[in-house]
Order: sequence, then C-alpha cells, then structure tokens
Amino acid sequence: MNAEIIAVGSELLLGQIVNTNARFLSRQLADLGINVFYHTVVGDNPDRLKNAMGIARERAELIIFTGGLGPTKDDLTKDTIAAQLGKQLVLDEEAMTSIELYFEKTNRVMTENNRKQALVIEGSTVLKNDHGMAPGMFLATADNKYMLLPGPPSEMEPMFLKYGQAAISGMSGNQAKIESRVLRFFGIGEAALETKIEDLIDQQSNPTIAPLAGDGEVTLRLTARDDDNGTAQALIDKVEAEIMDRVGEYFYGYDETSLMLELSKLLKIKNLTLSAAESLTGGMFQQELTSVSGASSLFKGGLVCYSNEAKIGLVKVNPETIEKYGAVSGECAEELAMNAAALTNSDIGISFSGVAGPDSLEGHPPGTVFIGIHVKGLPVHSEKLTLSGSRTAIRKRAVKFGCQIIINRLSETRK
Amino acid sequence: MNAEIIAVGSELLLGQIVNTNARFLSRQLADLGINVFYHTVVGDNPDRLKNAMGIARERAELIIFTGGLGPTKDDLTKDTIAAQLGKQLVLDEEAMTSIELYFEKTNRVMTENNRKQALVIEGSTVLKNDHGMAPGMFLATADNKYMLLPGPPSEMEPMFLKYGQAAISGMSGNQAKIESRVLRFFGIGEAALETKIEDLIDQQSNPTIAPLAGDGEVTLRLTARDDDNGTAQALIDKVEAEIMDRVGEYFYGYDETSLMLELSKLLKIKNLTLSAAESLTGGMFQQELTSVSGASSLFKGGLVCYSNEAKIGLVKVNPETIEKYGAVSGECAEELAMNAAALTNSDIGISFSGVAGPDSLEGHPPGTVFIGIHVKGLPVHSEKLTLSGSRTAIRKRAVKFGCQIIINRLSETRK
Repeated sequence: MNAEIIAVGSELLLGQIVNTNARFLSRQLADLGINVFYHTVVGDNPDRLKNAMGIARERAELIIFTGGLGPTKDDLTKDTIAAQLGKQLVLDEEAMTSIELYFEKTNRVMTENNRKQALVIEGSTVLKNDHGMAPGMFLATADNKYMLLPGPPSEMEPMFLKYGQAAISGMSGNQAKIESRVLRFFGIGEAALETKIEDLIDQQSNPTIAPLAGDGEVTLRLTARDDDNGTAQALIDKVEAEIMDRVGEYFYGYDETSLMLELSKLLKIKNLTLSAAESLTGGMFQQELTSVSGASSLFKGGLVCYSNEAKIGLVKVNPETIEKYGAVSGECAEELAMNAAALTNSDIGISFSGVAGPDSLEGHPPGTVFIGIHVKGLPVHSEKLTLSGSRTAIRKRAVKFGCQIIINRLSETRK
Repeated sequence: MNAEIIAVGSELLLGQIVNTNARFLSRQLADLGINVFYHTVVGDNPDRLKNAMGIARERAELIIFTGGLGPTKDDLTKDTIAAQLGKQLVLDEEAMTSIELYFEKTNRVMTENNRKQALVIEGSTVLKNDHGMAPGMFLATADNKYMLLPGPPSEMEPMFLKYGQAAISGMSGNQAKIESRVLRFFGIGEAALETKIEDLIDQQSNPTIAPLAGDGEVTLRLTARDDDNGTAQALIDKVEAEIMDRVGEYFYGYDETSLMLELSKLLKIKNLTLSAAESLTGGMFQQELTSVSGASSLFKGGLVCYSNEAKIGLVKVNPETIEKYGAVSGECAEELAMNAAALTNSDIGISFSGVAGPDSLEGHPPGTVFIGIHVKGLPVHSEKLTLSGSRTAIRKRAVKFGCQIIINRLSETRK
C-alpha cells in the first residue's frame, strides 16, 4: 500500500509554520509498512484543495489530510472532500457533546460556529479527539481510503496513535512486518562513505540502504520487510555486519542518539567525571553536555576562556606556553585540558582552542582547531583538525570531534 | 506570479527530517510578493519526480526544487529536470575548481562521484554555493522558470539570499514594491500581545500584520505594497508607531536579530565587558554570546558551575551562602554574578541558577530560575523567574531573560 499526506493550511504556504505533521505521519506510516510517495501542502482554498485531492486519488491508495477541521471560515477540508465524494455532512452526537463539555469545563461561552466541528462525513468512522474539539474521520471508498486529522500536532498525534493507526491496520490485513535501524557515522563524508559501500547500495533490495548527511554526520537507514519480525531483523543484521567491516571505525551509535549522548552513557558506565576549558567553542561543549538531564553526576563545572587573559587568569595556563607556541596550539590545548580537570577535580579534561573565523588568528586560517584531552592515568594528548564551513559549523563539528576523541581515548584504556 | 516548491528527498518521506526549506522559501517568496500555492515533497525516484514536475509545470510559473544536487546515486534532480526539458548537463569549471579547493583545504581525497556536483543544466545561470559544493541553477523556459537549490539549509539559505533572490527579482519586472519589517518582542505571550492590538489586526490591509510566536518570542511582520518604496515604508512606519504605543515596552529589535545580538551591540557601544557564571544554563549564555564573530572585544571568559563544588571551588562562592540560602537563591545568584565579574576583571557579571527539571531541586519546582546581575557602579541585583516548558525551553528562555535584564539594567544607568 502507498500513501500521500496532504496538509491544508495557508499558514504553511506563507512560511509561518513548518509541516511537522508530515514528518510525524511519515514515520508512523513507515513503521506500518506503508510507503509514502508524496507530501502535498495546499492553502485554505477549495479549488486548489480539490485539485490536490484529484491528483492524490490517482496516485495514492491512502490519502491522509491534516488541518482544516476547525470552526472558522477557513476550515474547509471536510466540506470539500464530502462534496468531491458526493457525500453529506452529518452531526456526530458524541463529538457535539464533547465540544459542549469542553466549553463548560473551560468556562467559556460556545459560539455557534463551534457546532460546525461536530459535523462529520456520512459513513465515516469517527476518530475521537481527546485533546481538542474537532474529531477526525476515516472513510473507505472503492478506490481510496481517506483519513482526516486535525492540524495542531498536540491533537493530531495522539489521535493518530490511539485511533488512526488502528483504523489503518484494520484495513491493511496481514502485511509484511517492517523493521528499520539507523546507523550513525561521524568523521567521514557522505560521498566517501557511499564509495566504500557502493556495491552494497547497488545490490540493495531487502533491506534497503538509505544514506543521509547532516550537521557533519552521515546516517544509513536499513529497512527490511518480512512476514516475520525476527527474519527482518536478521536481514538487517547481515547487511549491518558487512557495512561495519568497511566503515565501522566511523560508527558511533544506533537510531536516535548523538555523540554527546553516547559519551555521557560511557562516562556513566565507567563512573568518570569530565570538565572542559573552551576557547573556540565558547561553552558549546558544556551546554550540550548539560542539555541531557542527569548530567550532574558526570559534570561538576568548567571554564570558558575566550581570551588569553582568561586562559592565564582563569585556567592557569603558563603565560610562556602562549608566548612560545601561541594560544592556537597543541601545547596550549593540552595545558588547558589538564588544568580544567585539575581545577574541578575531574577524571577527564577536554579543551578546544582554534579559529572559528571569519578572520585568521596567530597565522592560522579559520577552521584550524586544536583539541586537548587529558584522561587520568594516560599521557595528555592533543589533536589538530582542519574543518571547513561557517563559524557555527566549525564550532559544532569541533564539539562532535571532541566527543569522539574522548570516546576513542576511553576505548584505548580498555586495551 | 505564483510558485510551487518541490523538495526532493526520500528522507523527507521517511520522516527522518522535516521540510524547513519550504518554510524558509515561502517566507522569502512572500516578501518578494510571489504567491506560493503548493508545496510538494517527492522521493529520490526519477519517475515520481517527473510526475511532480509535470504537475507543477501546469499550475505554477516559478518552480523551486530543493535537494538532490549532491554527489551520490540518490541525487537525481538535475538529471531528471534536464531530461524533461531536453537539455544536457555540462561541466561548470568554476564549480569544479571550488570543489577541488574544498577537498584540498580539508585535506581529504576527492572521490570521483564528487565531480558530478559540478555538472549544471546547459543554458542555466549558475548560483554559487559559498557554503558547500553543489552549485544551484536558475533557468527560464517559455512557460516556466526553474530554480534548483541544494538540500542542506546551511547551503540553500545563503545561496537563495545572495544569488537566488536577485535572479527572481530580475525576472519579475515592474511589480509593486514590497517592503516588510519584522518587530520582535520578548516577555509577552502571543495571545496577550494580539489582544492589545486586536483592532489593528482586524483593520489590516496595507500593511498587513502577521504575528508569529516561537522560542518564547513573538514577532509581528508588517508588509506593505506600493509602487513607491518610500510610500510603502511610510505606511509601515505609521502602523509601527501605533503598535509601539501599546506594546513598546516588550519590543527589542527589528528583522533578523536576537536579544543576544542587541546586547552585544549595546556592550560594544558602551565599551563594556561581560562575564558569566552559569549553573542552570550550563554554558548556553556564553556559547550564544560567542556565536557572533567579534565577541572577543566584550567577553574574555567565564565559568560553568553545575555543581555546588564548582560554585565554591571555581567561582569562589562562600559555602555559607549555599548552606543558608541554597544554590537556587537570589543570594547565591548575586554572589556568582559578582565573582564572575571579579575573576575575569569584567565590567558586568551575570549568573543563572535554577531548576531545569525534570526533578525539583532544594524544594523548588522545575522552572524556578534566579538570575544575578552585577554592573560596575550599581548595586548587585537578582531576579526570580518562574518559567514553564521543557528542560531546553526553560534554559533558552532563561538566557533570553538574562539578555533583557542586562539591557534594561544598562538603560537605567543612563537615567
């Protein structure tokens, strides 16, 4: 089965909001084994909605509409679809009662246009709205299935999960099971990674291999189908093993994770604490580290040393180090890392010194980054990176490299 | 003129990413006075892309494609469009040189598939990519105009602003001039702001008033049309004055700015330096401050004190203060702010202590935030905020309040 998602709302075409509903529904449909071939966004205009619906009927079996179920004049999804299908709108008593209750509960006076929200297309299955007023609908004709969902994600998402999914599963019969797994890589470009697994991508059928690049990372989504979940998982395992043989050194995690999250997990397992002294990154590493709740068990505090004065005054770097090697140097980065750990009594210290741009610094071009890393019991160490991109991109990638360097350094201690 | 935006990429249909490009371009086109009637998303599949392109040709004059310009096998936007238009792909020497330079600069070996990125549709105007490798294109046929832009927003947005916009403006002839201005507010909710200017919104026609809320801020976009730019500006001035009369106290800046940018400008004008000691925000304030190039003239460094140990050890807070009042207190925040300034020899010190959640701390519920502010020559001061939302939302809003508090405090010194 394949599907199209049609979002109705001029606010999307004006760029006032972004179509997160399409993302949510696409993920859900993928999990149900339904291929989404198109997303469409159309404004609050009956003719253009009719046009979009006509096109979707020809190319999609399941059509999901979001938005346009509210009480105002703009809200015309139901009316337009009903008219196209030659159906009437009828009052749903249960929806009407729940709308009245809603107004009672919130001590507001119900205006007449709110009654409109209780009208549903005749013959449709009503999908209850537990988080708002407008109910959804599911309707099957000889050629297509239609689902109408409200626009606000806070209403749409729970409605789909609780009632919509079941309506779709009920109609799709005994479909093949879909399993998918995302492999995350850092430190290798998309083209380079794809070159290394080109033959696997060319042969792909089950599982499929979908690469995606973003924010300096590359992910591969492996999706397998089989009547049996276990077999689908085994198909993925096999391809994953082949991929890991080729590019496993850049792999860092599965599905929804990040380098910082993986680092945090590792530190918790090893019961280690971490501190940082950040010049180039200005606090970005520590901010990301503390964005996860529970960071307090592995992070006490750290320093931001944007100027040489702060490197010397706050982080106690020897002025001679800066004089002799510069602030943008491995020597300075190593001292910053050691001192960050010492000043906070932490097991690990990391530092970032470099040039975010746009101007050069101490003769180094933008993108030159030194990361210092001190792990208790190991010799202090630094790495030089040459990164490209905007100021923000350089800082973000430096933070990711920092995470990766610590993870690698901690793996070495196991050897 | 009307437009359709077609995003190409299976990752969108799988729900891996959300189509923010459509939002960005819709806003930009609205400013150019171009109506966007449809957004379409299609996967990396030549037949379905052909289908989407065929539909768009019938219903839109300007068609903008995003995505599918990269080096991998998936990337087929150029090939498909060229084939549909009966055109060849030709090598763009300038793009090729810049791709080679990119690899040279980053010390990476260029794989053969990267050459593909330098191919452009014959007869098109090449749009340079200053932030990545794949160039964009603009092409006019008898019936339609086509623009091809890369998928990553970090490449697409600057390309459109620097080169794409001009290509479109050049073709659109003598249209009415569009002027628009964004007013930015912080510290007031969208509904409250809208209520205060409800009559202005109801009467709007030229200029139009479009409110938008996000990240704790509310913006009003005023857009006026006239044959003459000056008249359009004057129409905006008039409505702006009426709005400022009502809600001016929450206004902080125009167009693409931020509270942090406004704070940075103010500090530069007044030639003041700033430091921070961050508990709750974990470095977010300093990271944002240093995200702007040139921050080094007003920021030397600061501290992150996530634990009481770091508040005492790094920021030299008197242990008795924490014992007596708690770390989440005005007293502790004030001492942190004073010490941050003193330790870095800065004119201003700010601190953030509070509860980001999900758990309570020292008996305070999540959302309790104390901001300490020390300005040289003024008595130290703290403010208690009660914020709501997720962990990240609380931290972000605390940083914004911090900026606003400093801006207000510095205005008082003028009085």
